[in-house]
Amino acid sequence: VRHLLYDDYSEGAHPAILDAIREANSGQEMGYGHDSHSALAARRIIGALGVDADVQFVSGGTQANLIGLAAMLRPHEGVVAAQTAHINVNETGAVEATGHKVITLPSADGKVTAAMIDEACALHTDEHTVKPRVVFLSQATERGTVYSVDELHALVDHAHRVGLLVYLDGARLAMAVAAWSPSMLHDLAALGVDVLYIGGTKNGGLFGEALVLCNPAIRTDFRYIMKQRGGLLAKGRAIGAQFARFFADDGLWLKLGADANASAHRLGTGLAAAGIELVQPVVTNQVFALLDDAVVEPLSRQFGFYVWERRGDGQSVVRLVCSWATPDEAVDEFIAAASPVAGSR
Amino acid sequence: VRHLLYDDYSEGAHPAILDAIREANSGQEMGYGHDSHSALAARRIIGALGVDADVQFVSGGTQANLIGLAAMLRPHEGVVAAQTAHINVNETGAVEATGHKVITLPSADGKVTAAMIDEACALHTDEHTVKPRVVFLSQATERGTVYSVDELHALVDHAHRVGLLVYLDGARLAMAVAAWSPSMLHDLAALGVDVLYIGGTKNGGLFGEALVLCNPAIRTDFRYIMKQRGGLLAKGRAIGAQFARFFADDGLWLKLGADANASAHRLGTGLAAAGIELVQPVVTNQVFALLDDAVVEPLSRQFGFYVWERRGDGQSVVRLVCSWATPDEAVDEFIAAASPVAGSR
Amino acid sequence: VRHLLYDDYSEGAHPAILDAIREANSGQEMGYGHDSHSALAARRIIGALGVDADVQFVSGGTQANLIGLAAMLRPHEGVVAAQTAHINVNETGAVEATGHKVITLPSADGKVTAAMIDEACALHTDEHTVKPRVVFLSQATERGTVYSVDELHALVDHAHRVGLLVYLDGARLAMAVAAWSPSMLHDLAALGVDVLYIGGTKNGGLFGEALVLCNPAIRTDFRYIMKQRGGLLAKGRAIGAQFARFFADDGLWLKLGADANASAHRLGTGLAAAGIELVQPVVTNQVFALLDDAVVEPLSRQFGFYVWERRGDGQSVVRLVCSWATPDEAVDEFIAAASPVAGSR
Amino acid sequence: VRHLLYDDYSEGAHPAILDAIREANSGQEMGYGHDSHSALAARRIIGALGVDADVQFVSGGTQANLIGLAAMLRPHEGVVAAQTAHINVNETGAVEATGHKVITLPSADGKVTAAMIDEACALHTDEHTVKPRVVFLSQATERGTVYSVDELHALVDHAHRVGLLVYLDGARLAMAVAAWSPSMLHDLAALGVDVLYIGGTKNGGLFGEALVLCNPAIRTDFRYIMKQRGGLLAKGRAIGAQFARFFADDGLWLKLGADANASAHRLGTGLAAAGIELVQPVVTNQVFALLDDAVVEPLSRQFGFYVWERRGDGQSVVRLVCSWATPDEAVDEFIAAASPVAGSR
Repeated sequence: VRHLLYDDYSEGAHPAILDAIREANSGQEMGYGHDSHSALAARRIIGALGVDADVQFVSGGTQANLIGLAAMLRPHEGVVAAQTAHINVNETGAVEATGHKVITLPSADGKVTAAMIDEACALHTDEHTVKPRVVFLSQATERGTVYSVDELHALVDHAHRVGLLVYLDGARLAMAVAAWSPSMLHDLAALGVDVLYIGGTKNGGLFGEALVLCNPAIRTDFRYIMKQRGGLLAKGRAIGAQFARFFADDGLWLKLGADANASAHRLGTGLAAAGIELVQPVVTNQVFALLDDAVVEPLSRQFGFYVWERRGDGQSVVRLVCSWATPDEAVDEFIAAASPVAGSR
Repeated sequence: VRHLLYDDYSEGAHPAILDAIREANSGQEMGYGHDSHSALAARRIIGALGVDADVQFVSGGTQANLIGLAAMLRPHEGVVAAQTAHINVNETGAVEATGHKVITLPSADGKVTAAMIDEACALHTDEHTVKPRVVFLSQATERGTVYSVDELHALVDHAHRVGLLVYLDGARLAMAVAAWSPSMLHDLAALGVDVLYIGGTKNGGLFGEALVLCNPAIRTDFRYIMKQRGGLLAKGRAIGAQFARFFADDGLWLKLGADANASAHRLGTGLAAAGIELVQPVVTNQVFALLDDAVVEPLSRQFGFYVWERRGDGQSVVRLVCSWATPDEAVDEFIAAASPVAGSR
Repeated sequence: VRHLLYDDYSEGAHPAILDAIREANSGQEMGYGHDSHSALAARRIIGALGVDADVQFVSGGTQANLIGLAAMLRPHEGVVAAQTAHINVNETGAVEATGHKVITLPSADGKVTAAMIDEACALHTDEHTVKPRVVFLSQATERGTVYSVDELHALVDHAHRVGLLVYLDGARLAMAVAAWSPSMLHDLAALGVDVLYIGGTKNGGLFGEALVLCNPAIRTDFRYIMKQRGGLLAKGRAIGAQFARFFADDGLWLKLGADANASAHRLGTGLAAAGIELVQPVVTNQVFALLDDAVVEPLSRQFGFYVWERRGDGQSVVRLVCSWATPDEAVDEFIAAASPVAGSR
Repeated sequence: VRHLLYDDYSEGAHPAILDAIREANSGQEMGYGHDSHSALAARRIIGALGVDADVQFVSGGTQANLIGLAAMLRPHEGVVAAQTAHINVNETGAVEATGHKVITLPSADGKVTAAMIDEACALHTDEHTVKPRVVFLSQATERGTVYSVDELHALVDHAHRVGLLVYLDGARLAMAVAAWSPSMLHDLAALGVDVLYIGGTKNGGLFGEALVLCNPAIRTDFRYIMKQRGGLLAKGRAIGAQFARFFADDGLWLKLGADANASAHRLGTGLAAAGIELVQPVVTNQVFALLDDAVVEPLSRQFGFYVWERRGDGQSVVRLVCSWATPDEAVDEFIAAASPVAGSR
């Protein structure tokens, strides 16, 4: 069997999530998220965050981002993001298709900084340019890095001080929280993030993401925009049941994030021990490793993964993504296969 | 228990569909619809239709419509539809949010006619108006009616002759095919419908709809538009497995449509026998009944349903929707409760 | 020479307007409407209206409408209009291209009523439909009719009471004011119209329209939206000078509207005297006359005009538009040529 | 008097252009560009270019760009441009507001290269990213530089070879042609540029730009998109007359471009002689000069100009733009005032 390390959605759903869907299946419920499971999920998420909020569920990450941002922006307003941000490089211009510019700034580690916000504001000062209005953060970032609570605190404060709102893409929030501390979830809301998206799909869900509207001003008519963009699922219980299960007392959501991180750490540590350079320290469930081009091709017959950057000097950066379901054997086999010693034998 | 006759998505998924999701859950698969289950589902759908086509899966009906139409239209082109069409009255301006006008014409029974197409074309003849480009049909319509194969044949021919494409919204296609003849599915494709959406959600699916691109010109880059609009599900197997099951040899998809129709016929026949006027003959799974206003309020405490039209003369039209899961007892109880004799006792 | 009665922009600019452009031409001025002529025009318009307002200039009517409405609406909000409204039938879906639905209701005389607003609101009550947010009025309407001050007062009050804003398209406002009373201009602003567009092009301007933002909430970042939609003219003085001249002490703007009306009245009276039915009383500068089809074709070789409606019973409604520049001879020749007596000779 | 060197539209129109507008003013003409002056202008432009083309007129540059690009792109397609491109930094996200991403690449001199096109294509290879479809060139660029005919030839060939179309923004095309050779206009069309915009406003026009559709495929329904975006001027003769005059036998259009260039050369040469560094060689009518911050503030009381870049090291780049109307005295006064010797006195 060829193991896939492309991403964290090559697996199916975690068995407990499937069970939750099945248990929620019988009987009639109101449609479009007005069901008892979605209500329970929302209560549990609000409990975990410790703030008052409106929680809505959509079926995927691009949907979460395009809906959340469309609800926050007037037509001439733009969103400030790192050049590596998912909305900039992996969503086929979904934000632009709602009419808004993504204002990007270079970032080596995938993080936005206060200086980047300032630069974006300095470059956009009058009606001949778009007006920066939202700062887009990913936690974890597309490079697998994590903002500390202090970093987030400073960023949110800074954004608000200069008149910008904060949207946090948490497709891999479970991994970030697991890498940092369970208390981060609580901190996030307390810090004043305006809209937060809590990922399900990449963390063992079958599908579905939770949009948490912390800022009351953004709640007005939010469901209209969900519906207009195709984001209001008829049988809303199918997502509600998953999130109710994720945030049940046993802390499944956080546990799955920790499992994914653990696999990636095993992988990173093994590769480093074999003398392979990691271009980014492993913090969450993504490993960015520098491999000889001569190794990449044979490896890709044995494993599925993406070449992130061809350096043109005989080496390439590959991205390896682990999930809650990645078996230790797959990790160990990859390390063995990629190891230069193995190659020289 | 209060029975809901609001719609055909207050139920969960049919058990066989849930089983299919579970069976498809283990192991790794490529994401975004490049999995073996989606491939199998596509092959089975193509087999059922008997034409070459590209089949793609999205999570809901508004998504299907907005993506399908966005792919068919240049910016200045519009879509011709009946005033009652779902895209006109139930999707929060989703089509307009992609930049396109919905050109509507009155229709008593929810059907579009060749004369309506001609009228739309006659009213839009130069660059000061949008250009009609797609005819939007629903099969079954929002009034529960069904186009015959001959009607469809004539409509598609007419549309093509005047330079328009045809998009068929089949959210309730199973009910329409079951009401007419299994061969209709085969006919549909043969007739030259350009894009066809085969509904899953309202026919016992957990979620998901199939977009069938019959016209090769529309296939180009179609998946870009799906992704851009948030319609490319990461774990595509979750929808693929459902449609593979729907179109397995036992004909589940058609059977569920027939079951829904049968419940509605039982309901309609019973109401008529009790002297209640049906404003539309019952063809598929929707019943439009004329009730005294004095009856509507107490009934709505016992059953969930929508008031479709308040006539202002002491009577109202209510819409009653049955599904594959509607129990006979619910139907019989409703008839008894709505019956004027019961009321007079 | 073949006289054109197609519309009120087949003429060039009024000589005084051309003179104003020439006088404003020398010397340097700041661009994009920050010039002294635009400032003077704004002051004069504010003076004429008697309210505080922000006045901005754009080059044409479709631009005025799409910019004004885009600034007033969130993505899921729609605009309520008569089916005959210019934004519905003559602007190639410009409003839809900004993402918004135009909610139309039938209107025999081109006017919106409070009952129509109520009906639109009654049909759009939850997140499955767009949310009515702006009422679009034309003064004069596309049928040449004029709202009285009392009608406007009631409409604006009603719209505000049910939570809607009011946008008034005044492409032919001069004709409406001239038909009613000079004081109407003052009344309009006092009534609480939120955004008002004062037409220049159809009233003797070379090009250009004034957008008057009475409601302070709509002024925020309005110029961003103008720029984004291509509506900020680099040499803004070219429009500013025209409107400064229109609203100079001699009342040119109102006078030109009155001249256009006078020609239309001469035309309407003459046609009626010749026994030709007018399907709409002549109030402003448009005449809708019922002619035998046999007359229409030969007439259209002598004069330019549009056939508004082919009745299919041997008669057609033609639209005849007069302007400040229409010579009496043209009017008299048309009457003579269209007159049945003349035809029978 | 405080001379303005902000841009090339602080002047009014050239007197000959105003005369042309006045001469075209009398009599009736069909609206929306179907007038005799627009037809004459189109014929003359086609003659100057030496190719068959469809020529349309719009009122400003942002309109030209957003309309031209909207007509060339399907929803998921993007436009490749230099980071300095006008559509990226000076049009308030107008292109994004039509739904399309601007894919930007760094460029020191404002030019796009074949390598940049290749890089954009290499980064956008599947349905998770937008699809590059149009290369946006400015001639002259926003940095005042000019593509040689050989450069353009190679770029257009390269773009077409990799499946991209070419749009050329010629807001300052007169200056580029004047800087290179009159034959460039002829070459441009022969090279296969798909859409070309010939600037009027910045070259002595009152307002208005010409869109030249060389590629027949783009002509289909182009006027619909013009109208939809507010770009179809009712009294089209007002622009047509200007362009008919620009391209009359005396070569006014080219002459005005040459005059603007000559002033800029006088300015650049004088500044250089005074020991002031020019960060970009002066090719057209823009001068980018490096000034001590201590000089910038007093200078800006005497002259209007933009600070382009604050280096933070005590020096700033200022942009100085000349036009056909810039008097030699203004140039000489600026040189004297900016000169370090003068400052030291």
